[in-house]
Order: sequence, then C-alpha cells, then structure tokens
Amino acid sequence: MSTQGDARPDPEAGADEPKSLAGRHVGDRRVRVRRPAVRPFRYRGPGVLTAQAATFAPRGPGEAAAIRLRRVLFGRPLATDEEHEERLGKVKALAVFSSDNLSSVAYATESIMFTLIVAGSALLWLTMPISIVIVAVFGIIVVSYRQTIRAYPHGGGSYIVARENLGTTASLVAGGALLVDYVLTVSVSVAAGVAAITSAFPGPLADHRVEIAAVFIVGIMLINLRGIRESGTIFALPTYVFLATTLGLITFGLGRTLLGHPPTVTGVVAPDVPVVESLGLLLLMRAFADGCSAITGVEAISNGVPAFRRPEWRNARLTLTVMGALVAVMFLGISALALVAGASPSPQETVLSQLGRAVFGPGPVYYVFQLATMGILVLAANTAFADFPRLASFLARDGFMPSRFAYRGERLAFGAGIVALAVVAIAVLAAFGGRVEALIPLYAIGVFTSITVSQTGMVRHWWRERGAGWRPGIVINGVGAVACAIVAVIFAVAKFALGAWLIIVIIPALIVAMRFVHRQYERRRLDVGVEPEVVIGPPRRSQQVFLPVADLTRDVVQSVKFARTMAEHVTAIHATDDVAAGEALRERFRRQLPGIDFVIVESPFRKLVRPLVRYFEHIAQGDGEGVVIVLLPEVVPRHWWERFLYNDNAHRIRAELLGRPGILVADVPYRRA
Amino acid sequence: MSTQGDARPDPEAGADEPKSLAGRHVGDRRVRVRRPAVRPFRYRGPGVLTAQAATFAPRGPGEAAAIRLRRVLFGRPLATDEEHEERLGKVKALAVFSSDNLSSVAYATESIMFTLIVAGSALLWLTMPISIVIVAVFGIIVVSYRQTIRAYPHGGGSYIVARENLGTTASLVAGGALLVDYVLTVSVSVAAGVAAITSAFPGPLADHRVEIAAVFIVGIMLINLRGIRESGTIFALPTYVFLATTLGLITFGLGRTLLGHPPTVTGVVAPDVPVVESLGLLLLMRAFADGCSAITGVEAISNGVPAFRRPEWRNARLTLTVMGALVAVMFLGISALALVAGASPSPQETVLSQLGRAVFGPGPVYYVFQLATMGILVLAANTAFADFPRLASFLARDGFMPSRFAYRGERLAFGAGIVALAVVAIAVLAAFGGRVEALIPLYAIGVFTSITVSQTGMVRHWWRERGAGWRPGIVINGVGAVACAIVAVIFAVAKFALGAWLIIVIIPALIVAMRFVHRQYERRRLDVGVEPEVVIGPPRRSQQVFLPVADLTRDVVQSVKFARTMAEHVTAIHATDDVAAGEALRERFRRQLPGIDFVIVESPFRKLVRPLVRYFEHIAQGDGEGVVIVLLPEVVPRHWWERFLYNDNAHRIRAELLGRPGILVADVPYRRA
Repeated sequence: MSTQGDARPDPEAGADEPKSLAGRHVGDRRVRVRRPAVRPFRYRGPGVLTAQAATFAPRGPGEAAAIRLRRVLFGRPLATDEEHEERLGKVKALAVFSSDNLSSVAYATESIMFTLIVAGSALLWLTMPISIVIVAVFGIIVVSYRQTIRAYPHGGGSYIVARENLGTTASLVAGGALLVDYVLTVSVSVAAGVAAITSAFPGPLADHRVEIAAVFIVGIMLINLRGIRESGTIFALPTYVFLATTLGLITFGLGRTLLGHPPTVTGVVAPDVPVVESLGLLLLMRAFADGCSAITGVEAISNGVPAFRRPEWRNARLTLTVMGALVAVMFLGISALALVAGASPSPQETVLSQLGRAVFGPGPVYYVFQLATMGILVLAANTAFADFPRLASFLARDGFMPSRFAYRGERLAFGAGIVALAVVAIAVLAAFGGRVEALIPLYAIGVFTSITVSQTGMVRHWWRERGAGWRPGIVINGVGAVACAIVAVIFAVAKFALGAWLIIVIIPALIVAMRFVHRQYERRRLDVGVEPEVVIGPPRRSQQVFLPVADLTRDVVQSVKFARTMAEHVTAIHATDDVAAGEALRERFRRQLPGIDFVIVESPFRKLVRPLVRYFEHIAQGDGEGVVIVLLPEVVPRHWWERFLYNDNAHRIRAELLGRPGILVADVPYRRA
Repeated sequence: MSTQGDARPDPEAGADEPKSLAGRHVGDRRVRVRRPAVRPFRYRGPGVLTAQAATFAPRGPGEAAAIRLRRVLFGRPLATDEEHEERLGKVKALAVFSSDNLSSVAYATESIMFTLIVAGSALLWLTMPISIVIVAVFGIIVVSYRQTIRAYPHGGGSYIVARENLGTTASLVAGGALLVDYVLTVSVSVAAGVAAITSAFPGPLADHRVEIAAVFIVGIMLINLRGIRESGTIFALPTYVFLATTLGLITFGLGRTLLGHPPTVTGVVAPDVPVVESLGLLLLMRAFADGCSAITGVEAISNGVPAFRRPEWRNARLTLTVMGALVAVMFLGISALALVAGASPSPQETVLSQLGRAVFGPGPVYYVFQLATMGILVLAANTAFADFPRLASFLARDGFMPSRFAYRGERLAFGAGIVALAVVAIAVLAAFGGRVEALIPLYAIGVFTSITVSQTGMVRHWWRERGAGWRPGIVINGVGAVACAIVAVIFAVAKFALGAWLIIVIIPALIVAMRFVHRQYERRRLDVGVEPEVVIGPPRRSQQVFLPVADLTRDVVQSVKFARTMAEHVTAIHATDDVAAGEALRERFRRQLPGIDFVIVESPFRKLVRPLVRYFEHIAQGDGEGVVIVLLPEVVPRHWWERFLYNDNAHRIRAELLGRPGILVADVPYRRA
C-alpha cells in the first residue's frame, strides 16, 4: 500500500509555503494553525481543504487487511463527483427498467391457476378471461403512466408525485406501500427464479429453496453494495434472451396448435387438490388479484426518466409502450398456451417450465429458456435493490427514516437501505418457506395502493397546473386512479384471509413509525436549533472550574492540565465517607499538584454522586453571574467487562448536572496510548 | 417531605459568615468559591464539608415516591458512624452463630439413609456407626477451631487465615470454596426448611417447593438489605425451641425404648427403591460424605469472635464447645432414634418429621417441632446471607471481586453480595427442583476444602510464631488439617459422579475469574497510576482549540462558549462532501458567532470522521510544543431509540483521538433543561 507513506509528513513540502492555512480567511487575525504539510489534504481555497484518498490510509496491519478485503469485494472508494449517470438508449433502457415487469409473466399465469384449481381443474379455462381483464387494467395503467412521464420528466415516483400534490400523509401511504412491495418483489422474484431452476433440475435442490434464495439475495446485495451502475449491457443479455425464448415459445406453441398439433404437457403430477370450494365471486376476485402480479414493476420507467437519452420523456414513453405491449402479448400468450397444452399448477414444476418442455422438448433450448427466466427474475430483484434504497433515501432526507438511509458509502451506494432490504427479504422468504404461491397473496397490494395514490396525485396535478393537454390528462389519470383503487379494494377483500391482512397491518404501522421518526427529528431540531438572527457575542463570563476526583491518577492529572487552560484557580472536589483518607489525598494533591484547591465533601451515607451534584448546584446558585464548569475525568475502558469492575459515578454526575442553569459539564476522557 | 425545603438557600445563613469556604485552606490565594449557604452541608473544618441528609432530598414527585418506598422497605439511611456491633453474651451468641451448624442435624441422618437405602433397607443399621465416625471427625474439627479462635481473636475466617499464612492462591481456594458453599447453605437449608413444612402439611404444597423456597430466599434477602443487626433476640427463639424440642424428642423417644415401648413410625411409604447396588466401599464413603453435612457451619464462631463479650476468645471457645456437644448429642440421638423407630427416607416426609410424629403424636407439640425446625433452617440460610457478602467484600477490597461488592449501601449492608447470593441460590434451587437429597452431594465439599486450607494455615501460623503453646497447637491443627483433607478427598471421590464434579469445576473457574479481575485492576492501576514523587507543575503550554461542527446548533454554541474560556482563538472544523453547503454554514458562523474561525474539510468520499482525525493529528504534529484541544459538542439523547436516528461521529472521533500525543479531547454534552 503505497498510500501508507502519505500519512507521514511530506518532506517535500517547502518551507516557503504559507504557514497558516486555516487562518488565512480570518484576515487581520493570524491563528497559529499550520497547514498540514502532507498530501492527505489539498488546499482548495481560503479555509477549505479537500481530503485526498491518502487520508484514509490504513493504520496498522489489521485495518490494512480490512481495507484490502473491502477493495476486493467492493472496489476502490468513489468520490462524490465521480458519479455519472449512464444515458440509456431505448434498447438498453427496456432491459434496465423492464426486467421487473417483464419477469412477472413468469409467475402470473401460474398464480391464477393455483387459485382456480381449488374449485376443480375443470374451471382452469377461466384463466384466459381473467388474463384478458388483467391486461385491460394493465393497459389503463400504462396509458396513465405515459401522462406521469410527460409531467415529471425528472422522475415521478409515487412518493414524489404524492408529496407534491397530495401532502404528507398520502406520500407516506405511497412510500410505505412501496417499501413493503419492494421487499416482496425481491422475495417473490428470487423465489420464482429458484423455482425455475428447481423445475429444470428437480431433485434435492427443492428442499433447499430458502437457502438457495438467500444466497441469491446476498449475492445481489453485495453487487449493489459495490454500487453497480445500472449498466444496460449487464441487463440486456438475460432480458432479450428471455424475450426471444418466451416469444418463440408462444409463436411456436400456438403455431403448432393452429396446425393441429398442439403441444402437450406430460409427466406433471397434477396436484391432488380436493375440490374444497365451489366457484364464487370471491374465488374469481382472488384469481384476478393473484394474476395482477403481472402488473408489478410497471412504474419503474416513470422513476427513471432522467436516465433516457434526449428527449427523455418521449423516449421513456415509447419504451413504456413497448414494454406494455410485450407484457400483454407474453402474458396472454402464456395463459393461452397453458390451457392448450394442458398445463396444471404444481409445486414441483412451474407452468412456464411445463410449457417449455412441451414446446421445446427437454433439449438445450429448454435449459436456455429456464436459465433466462431465472436471469430476468434475479434482475427484477436487483431492480428492487435500486428502488428501495433510493426511496428510503428520499424518506430519510425528508426526516421520515433514520438519516443513515440517506448516507452514501464508499461506492456511492445507499448501504443501509441495501442491507435492510436483503435482511427483510430473506426473513420473509424464510417465514414463507420460499414458496412463490404462498407469497403471491401478499404481493401487489402495495403496488396498487401506491399507483392509486400516484394517479390521484396526477389528477390533482393537472387540475392545479392546467397546462397544455390537462383535460385529457385528468381524464386518463382519473380513470387510472379509479381502476387501481377498485383493484386495490378487490385485493384487500379477496386476499384478506390469505395473508393480505398482514400487509394491511404493516403499511399503517410503517406510516406510524415514519411519523414517529419525523417527530423525533423535529423535536431534536427544536431542542438544539439556533434562531438564524441570533448573534452570540464574545463576552466571557467569569468561570470556576471544578474536578470531582477519587484519587490522584493520570486521568485526573490530564483533567487538571485541561482545567488550567480555562481558569487560574482549579478546585478538586473529593467526596468520601472517610475523611482521614480524604485528608491524605489532599496532602498528596498539595505535594504533587501544587496550586490546585482541594475540598473534601464528607458523605456519611456513602453515596457520592448526589452530594457532589448538590455542591455544584449551590456554587452555581450562589454565583449568579458566573459559570460553573465541571470537568469529569474519565478513564475509557479497553474492554466491555470493565464496566462491571468500576463504578460509573462520572456518568451519573454528568447526567444529573446536564442542562442545569449556570453549569457546564465536560468529560475529559483518558486512555493510555 | 420537609427536607425538600432544605435544598433551597437557607435565608438564616448570615451575611457575616465567611464567603469563601472551599478557598479557606489555600491561604494566600482567595478562590471565588462561596460556601453553599444551606443546610445540606455542614462546615467541618478547612476545606471539609459534610453532606447532611438533606443533600439527598428528593427532586420531583417520582423520586420522592421512590424514596418513600425505600424507607418503608429498608428504613432510613444509616450514617457510617451509626454502626455499632452488638456484644453478645454466650446464650445469645450460641443462637446467632450456631444456627447453621445446629440446623444441619435436621437433614444429616436422613442424608446417610438416602444413600444407604440404595443397597437395601436391611443395611440401614450402618447409619449408626457412620454417624459415630462423623462425630469423631467433628470433634477433631471443633478442637482445631478452638486453636483458631485463640490465635485470631479478631476473626479468623478461612480466607483471612489462608491469606496471612499461605499466600494468595491458598486464600483464593478457601475464598472460592466458601463462596460456593455459602450458596449451597442457602439452597440446602431453605429446601430442608420447606421440606419440614411440606412434611407437616402434605398435599399440593409439595408441588411448589421451588416457588416457596424462592419466596423464603427473597424474604431473607430483603431483611438483609434492610441491614438487620445480628440481633441475638431474633435468633434465640427458634434456636432454643428447636434445641428443646429436639432434645425432648431424643430423651422421650430413647427413654420409651429403654422402657420397652419404642416409638414406631407409621404411615410412611418406604420408597420402592430396587436394590441397585451392593454394599461397597464407595457406597460407605458416600454415606459418610453425605452425613458430613452435619459438620457445616462449624466455622461460624471463629469468624465472629469480636462480637463476644470480653474476654472474647474465651467466651467464643466455650460457646464452640457447647455447640459441638449439642450437635454431637442431637446427631447421634436422631440417628439412633431413626433406627429404633424404623424411620425410612422418603421424598414425602422428612425422617425428623417421621420421628416427631412417632414420638410426640400428631398433636400441637409435633407442629411446634416442625415450625422450629423450619425456623432454625431459615436462620441458617440467614447466616450465609451475613457470611457471603462479608467474604465478598474482603475479596473485593483485595481486588479479586468487582469493587461494588465492597460498597455498603444506605443501610450499611453489602447490597451487591446479598442480591448476588439470593439470585444464585434461587437458580441452584430451581435447577435441582428444590430437593434436599439432590443438593446434598454438592454440599460440604467447599466447607471441607476451606477448613483444610485454614487448618493448614494454622499449622504454618504456629510454626512461624512459636508463641505460647505452639507445640500442642501445631499438633492439633495438623491433625485437623489431615483429617479434613482426607474427608475432602473422600468427598471428591465418592460424590464425583453424583454432581461433585460440578463443584470441582466451579471452584477453580471461580479462582481463575478472581485472578482475572485482580489482573484487570492491576492493569488499570498501571494505566492511570501516578508515581507518588512526581510533581506536576503549573506551566501552561500554548493551546489551540478546535470544534468539529455539523451545523450551528445549541450544542455547538455551548461548546463555543466553553472553548472561549480556554483560548482567544477557536476554530470550528466542518467536514462535508458538499462545499457549497459548507460555505453557507461558514457565512452563518461569521454572522452569528463572530470571531470564530471556520475551516471546511471537504471529504469527497463522504466519510467524515477520518479526515477530521487526520487534520487534528497533523496540526498536533506541526505544532510540537503546543497542545491541540478538540471539543466535541454532543447532544445527549433523551431516549434509547435516538441512537438509531443520529450518527455517532463525536464518539468515533473521540475514540480515534484518545491517547494520541499532543491532543486532548473533551466531550461537551448538551441537553435542553
């Protein structure tokens, strides 16, 4: 590590350089602050230094090893100004922003069939009409988002649109719902990706679904901590292979059907589900709601408009339309093919895998198809790893989440959000055994809630702005809002008992928590805020400096040195129940620390903190115009167990004196170097 | 609470009183420290104040209620000089110091029988010869302790004797063994006391043995926290009733036998123990070891010699002899009666209760007898509550246990030791289901280990002192040491598999832990110790004061005020990755805190701590003769959750700067009043 050397004073730094750097800007008055004559800092202007990479040179072999490991895992640190947004052409943009939405077709048809089979396999034909209704809703949403893209060319996530048009509560509803849904996107997508693998390679793998999924999620987490740019190239391959194979599957499969040789699914053990329910409205609603998982991810493009080449909004709109058309075609095609080929939902093999085997045969094309399916599903999860931390950072910047979510680490990634998402997603997967069909009922409620809020926000937006095209805009977004609201209600009713209640509890809880966090920050702001017009002048009040001491130790000596910089006269206070021992200590102070006053406070009840506190208070009360400064010598422990070995009187004195008028407290920590 | 008023300045304090109190003793130089003109402190002499009870007057209704509750539970606080030792006459002394030893006869015979029954009830007659051997060993020990009392009239606990004659390791062996055994004394005595109750009142009570025992222990703990004086009166009643009834039982029972009408135990279901073992040496050894529980508590008088009336050692010796004779008579008598009356060990009813019923009949005398048995057993546990904390305080004062064990609370009781003993004893009871026969195998190993060490120490003592009577002394204590060592080895072998291994593991572990604690205190002493001849002079090195700031908030303003007491020129350092925001903050400082220098350290990698640390280090390196003082403004959180909401940069800066040459760090905590 050549940077190690940079930490030492630079011998090349010339003597003719200005000695005071920090002092330069103060004009008439020269502060004896020298410029650090080494490369860790670069002089940038009056009173401004820039820390160079050498500032972070490791200290000691342990830290060097840790840094090396971090470099290997995550790459070198990136400066803030090294960030650059890759502008995406439409082809790459489709890959980057559509993987979530496109990949949904891998499980949407199956989700409908899993629900319908409860009423008997004879009713599986209903998959087709339900799919058509879903595509119709999807169409409405796509058209609505075309409006949003136009109106918010700098990125119109639901949270932003809601905050700007509907106020805080609506924005938190959208934000909370989206956070929950991003978690579920990761869980569902990775679970479905693992299902694609275990379908292609049946056997013992299926028993380790959760573990495999967790490895995937940790891998995605590490890649995102590395701060991967949303590089179109990485995304393009699996996306377009998936598109090509899926469209090929549909064309080839339906083509064979038209020619009179429909493909037939074989070797699938249809699940031995007893007909537990007759067909009813609720079941239809539930099948519809489950199928709506095909719509998730549609909002991604409107979030990412600024990443498109100019004219951004026009290119984004076009890409959205293409994506919508592709999803519609694939979804309807897969649903049709599933019915034609006689696929049936099975915990062992996905419907898409059944179709792949039936159409392509169990050859290499089938395996490529399965791998591409897994690939695009993992990319979909990766999309959530970009969206969740970004949304969390918005919320943190607005004070609704802990500020660390707004902090970008060495690689410019929002580390806290990335790690939090991975942890929660793995926990959810584990809780539901990694089964896609168990997670689906929880899914998409958040998406539809947030789309509803966002479309409502757009209606408000058009009404307020009344710019060009506001009339059609308000109609389109109004229809979108109403449609999504209806879908959201259907979701809540149909899936309530199946787990949706959990989401319906969690989202408000999250909102309450975010409001609580916000209130905390507000309160702190009130506690420590300084009015912008107040001028704090230089007058120095007279001060007395006191040190509570238990013995004459190095930490006390350090504090005495400290105290002597503040006042001529320093008083050591010794509380004890043994006055004779106290007098011996006074004698020692007289001999070893000449010039320090020494007061013994005898405490016949052996408690030492309260008498000291009372003493300082009374000094402060008696001396109205002055300040009582209490310095607390503190030996900093080296190990956690030391707190069982020593009393904590310094902290207790500090806690009691804090905030009392006329008293300033300071800890003076000591640790032997 | 009339004391509340005392906290305010006393209007009666005359203006003619000397204004400076703390300053009085400094002679030529007058410090502007006024005497707190209120009654919380009493002036005692130059530079010495005594805190009065009013110092502890409550603040606010919450604390007042807490204090009232504490007063009710534990009584008013006692000043250190309020302690007085009650001098005990021989009659009361026997009650105070003998309860542990006397009470042992309640379970000793039964313990032997529980072991012998394994080889068949035909062999129960061996109880008698084993009892006789035990009484012989007991006699040797009593005679040995008569020597100890003579040699250590100020109290000769095993730990003290071992420390003074055999060195640290032996003293820790004795100390660790005794600590373990005091815990078991509480567990065994309380379990046996509960057994006396459940024998007299059979039924559902037996299912709640552990809960009842825990209530007893908590009760004894509270009484001891109240700091009960070892009042002879409280002890006398149960002790003498127990003595009277037990001696009556033996006289009456054996008398009836001599007259040809032996009492007969009825209604006891002899335990259906299959003969699992034939009689062997190991079984005999085990029965002997279990019976040796009769010897526990014999050392109590030698610990407490100073509490006797003058001449202390002579009275103590006499009391010891009487106690020994009583235990011998009762133990042999009970063993004989148990065989004559055909008692058999039973989990439902104690042997002593069987004998009581057989001799007294199920009338009031029987119930008095059972209650007295319970009473003396609880008193025995209470003895351990005096011994354990005292021994722990010796160990703490010598640095082998955390110092809080040496701290005496409001009521002069060693609170930490009392609470620790109760917690551990309840845990042990719970782990062994509250059954006496399960605890007995663990018991008495510690006692015999510590007696062996202490008698060996006495041998060494005689050899070194060679005072009057050293020759018979060395023989007596030598025989005692050898006898106890043999017993201890028999214990370890015979009871090893039955649980003694646990004790044999725990005692060395405890010694290792105590040595560890001692090493920690030694290391701290080296870390912070100041050589007694060093004089720390008054020279004031030039200093520069820096404040890392994130914003202009009240905590920063407070720290700036603080800093201005230390130096003309104070520099605020702002680390940021956003120089524009930094310049805005500089402008705010210029306007609102005129005269404060302001340096921006730009950190392009967004980490803020390391650049600041490097900056201070380089200032310190460049300014060889001066001191760099870094003040860290710190907002003290009000709630635990706030640590999730704010970064902890101040503490991280502090941790990195601590102990670096030329740099002094201080926290300046802020909390709004």
